[in-house]
Amino acid sequence: MAQHQQLHDKMNISLSLKSVAHLVAALFLFFICSMQLAAAKIFDAKSFTLDNGLEVIVVENPRVPVVTHMIWYKVGAADEQAGFSGMAHYLEHLLFKGTEKVVPGDFSKTVKQNGGNDNAFTSQDYTAYFQSIPSDHLEKMMEMETDRMLNAAPPPEHYASEKNVVLEERRQNTENDPRALFNEQMRSVMFPNHPYGTPVIGWMDEIKTYEWNDVKKFYDTWYAPNNAFLVVSGDVTVEEVKELAEKTYGRLSQKELPKRVRPVLPPSIAQTNLTLEHERIHQPAFQRGYLAQSYAQNREDALALDVLQEILSGGATTRFYKSLVVEKKLAISAGFSYSGNSKDYASAWVYGTPAQGVSLDTLKDAIEAELTNVIENGVSEQEVTNAITRIQDSAVFARDSLSGPAMIIGRSLTTGSSLEEIENWPDDIASITAKKVQDVAIKYLDINAPWHRAPVSGYLLPKEKEEATE
Amino acid sequence: MAQHQQLHDKMNISLSLKSVAHLVAALFLFFICSMQLAAAKIFDAKSFTLDNGLEVIVVENPRVPVVTHMIWYKVGAADEQAGFSGMAHYLEHLLFKGTEKVVPGDFSKTVKQNGGNDNAFTSQDYTAYFQSIPSDHLEKMMEMETDRMLNAAPPPEHYASEKNVVLEERRQNTENDPRALFNEQMRSVMFPNHPYGTPVIGWMDEIKTYEWNDVKKFYDTWYAPNNAFLVVSGDVTVEEVKELAEKTYGRLSQKELPKRVRPVLPPSIAQTNLTLEHERIHQPAFQRGYLAQSYAQNREDALALDVLQEILSGGATTRFYKSLVVEKKLAISAGFSYSGNSKDYASAWVYGTPAQGVSLDTLKDAIEAELTNVIENGVSEQEVTNAITRIQDSAVFARDSLSGPAMIIGRSLTTGSSLEEIENWPDDIASITAKKVQDVAIKYLDINAPWHRAPVSGYLLPKEKEEATE
Repeated sequence: MAQHQQLHDKMNISLSLKSVAHLVAALFLFFICSMQLAAAKIFDAKSFTLDNGLEVIVVENPRVPVVTHMIWYKVGAADEQAGFSGMAHYLEHLLFKGTEKVVPGDFSKTVKQNGGNDNAFTSQDYTAYFQSIPSDHLEKMMEMETDRMLNAAPPPEHYASEKNVVLEERRQNTENDPRALFNEQMRSVMFPNHPYGTPVIGWMDEIKTYEWNDVKKFYDTWYAPNNAFLVVSGDVTVEEVKELAEKTYGRLSQKELPKRVRPVLPPSIAQTNLTLEHERIHQPAFQRGYLAQSYAQNREDALALDVLQEILSGGATTRFYKSLVVEKKLAISAGFSYSGNSKDYASAWVYGTPAQGVSLDTLKDAIEAELTNVIENGVSEQEVTNAITRIQDSAVFARDSLSGPAMIIGRSLTTGSSLEEIENWPDDIASITAKKVQDVAIKYLDINAPWHRAPVSGYLLPKEKEEATE
Repeated sequence: MAQHQQLHDKMNISLSLKSVAHLVAALFLFFICSMQLAAAKIFDAKSFTLDNGLEVIVVENPRVPVVTHMIWYKVGAADEQAGFSGMAHYLEHLLFKGTEKVVPGDFSKTVKQNGGNDNAFTSQDYTAYFQSIPSDHLEKMMEMETDRMLNAAPPPEHYASEKNVVLEERRQNTENDPRALFNEQMRSVMFPNHPYGTPVIGWMDEIKTYEWNDVKKFYDTWYAPNNAFLVVSGDVTVEEVKELAEKTYGRLSQKELPKRVRPVLPPSIAQTNLTLEHERIHQPAFQRGYLAQSYAQNREDALALDVLQEILSGGATTRFYKSLVVEKKLAISAGFSYSGNSKDYASAWVYGTPAQGVSLDTLKDAIEAELTNVIENGVSEQEVTNAITRIQDSAVFARDSLSGPAMIIGRSLTTGSSLEEIENWPDDIASITAKKVQDVAIKYLDINAPWHRAPVSGYLLPKEKEEATE
């Protein structure tokens, strides 16, 4: 399950904000994913709903005789009860350990034997399982996934061993890495009282405590046809999918689902600074997080924040890199990132690593000046046009990947966008104006704006150096 | 219900860390309460358990023909589900609004008509209801409290009005007070992922959302004879209480109780500073919170921390006041506080308000120097002896108040102490040595100690002033 693990890691990185370096990678990943939305209109997705409530979306693409079959559950780490962090992810692991009919590992083995590959990932808001496989095996996949939706029965000997896999994953990626711990702490301060402040993989001491019985309750509560989206893309017609879906998933009964209650963020009026001096930090770094709104909360702002990100940080010719790295030579890297794909809150980040001999405070001031410049002077129409073009080009480029459309549609649907909004994304992003970009910069990044919440700033410092920043 | 409200406020202050000024008051309150434990041996409490699991504790005291009758539920704000903050407290309000037999307000009216008074309070770990009344009315009180334990039925017209009472309470005490908001934020950063980071009264936007159905579920889950302590002190014998308790509470059936799962605190490795400059802050203040352990977690350390608090901050002749206020004239107030009465974690705080012309950083450094002095040089045997004597004297003094014994016993039992530990408290506190006091200072207050978690520091500043502290 090396690949399975790898994708896990990627997803966890993107969600747990492992480090500035990782942040860049992760946000680029998110960015790519956001960009792919620009191709949404071209999906021409068809959809129908089974009697049991399962919503099915089909993107027909006959060019290669392959399908991607993804089931997306509207439940993730942020739906765990307090004290049970990491349970959604641990459950996802155990769902590869068999059902009443399938022995542990046989699902993936069957996929492989039929020339496909499978995987799964857990985020704050959704959990998804997928296979990419020659299209004639689609029915078999649907049959097995139908079975896994309600009949998981991992043998008891896997409870502890899989727990150890997860614990080891956390140990390697986080516990032994002061940057990763620091970034978790940043996030937990950014999102007090809200599960987005808890990493998807969970807290070490909580992962250790729960048992299969607890996990089974979570599974029985949330895994249901009426709490999922099925997305199939590839060489298949909507009629074929409909027939197969009715034959397989259609057998399942719907469940009564509990309210999906999410806590709120309490008031935040104090500037918060986190500082870590550590002997295993070799390069100083600055990062600051601003609370923002997601596509689900405020679609127009989210669109504009995506454009703002592209203008500030979309490549070597855009503002942050050009000004801070190339011209002023204050940073070896610097950026602005925003990710709006979440059911609840979103966040926007600035970050940078100073060039040799430049203090963290100097870089911080320069980054602040870049933001102030946008807040006070706005951006040019040309920058906006260029940004939108780049986003749309990337989207067109990304559209035709095998699993891309299913990924984009699933993620967007499970974080609150409608299929129509996904399809309209290219038009909508094109409607963003320079004025609107400045407006969101003021709204979310100006500490004097009324909406504003105090941001959270982080300072990473090598232990031996003395810096001005306290 | 003015008194009812007042006690509420006190409890909420002590638990929500409203402000430095309030902190001092609140911790003094806690301190008094802790001190009262010193008289515990003298309680000579008797106890028995009903068949339905209700544990009953009786402190006989025939000097005045009055009893205090308190029912303590082992459930509080920290047992609320995420997203439902303030529900335990709102429920406590609604439990004054009648049952199937008693019309709204009649419980308190009956108490008053019989020459008594009643009240209730909610904390993180417990919720308690009590009446003080001439002893011949004890049976009536038990009858009414028995009814209220399982048959609450507040009429629907009180749901919204009582919600408004609570919202108004929060608005007045917190929302309009930048210090209060700041202190809530300090606490939420001190206790990430844990309900102790959420104020007992709840977050404004969450209080507004839940309905009686949700609250009723909480009530039905946790209010049960086998999840409560009944404490009766005053002019009554254990035999009399037993007979009455069997006749009243004894009728109730026990319930199957869920596991009381509490989240854990995640790692904290970064120094965290919160700064608030605000035009309604008129006096700068510094405060810093260190994570500590409670009586329930580490009894010996908690005893020593109580002694340390007395040595540092127990009065005008103890270290903080003498050094910082009187001798160095750096502060108009300064202190150290620790409160160990909690089921989970505890915290220790230093705080101070600088004298005219003294910067916050200067005061902060001086406070740190006081702690470093204890960490490096310890305290004298004489200081320890004096502190223990003062604690015990206060305890003896506090012992004979009317409701004091029931308060102390109930609070200690519901936060994890045994009756035996309560009774042994005076002996145990006397066993604390100067070495042990220094040990806990190192363990909890030395940033280089292995147990250590990075503390959280808060800087409150008037808006117009420019201070060195960022």
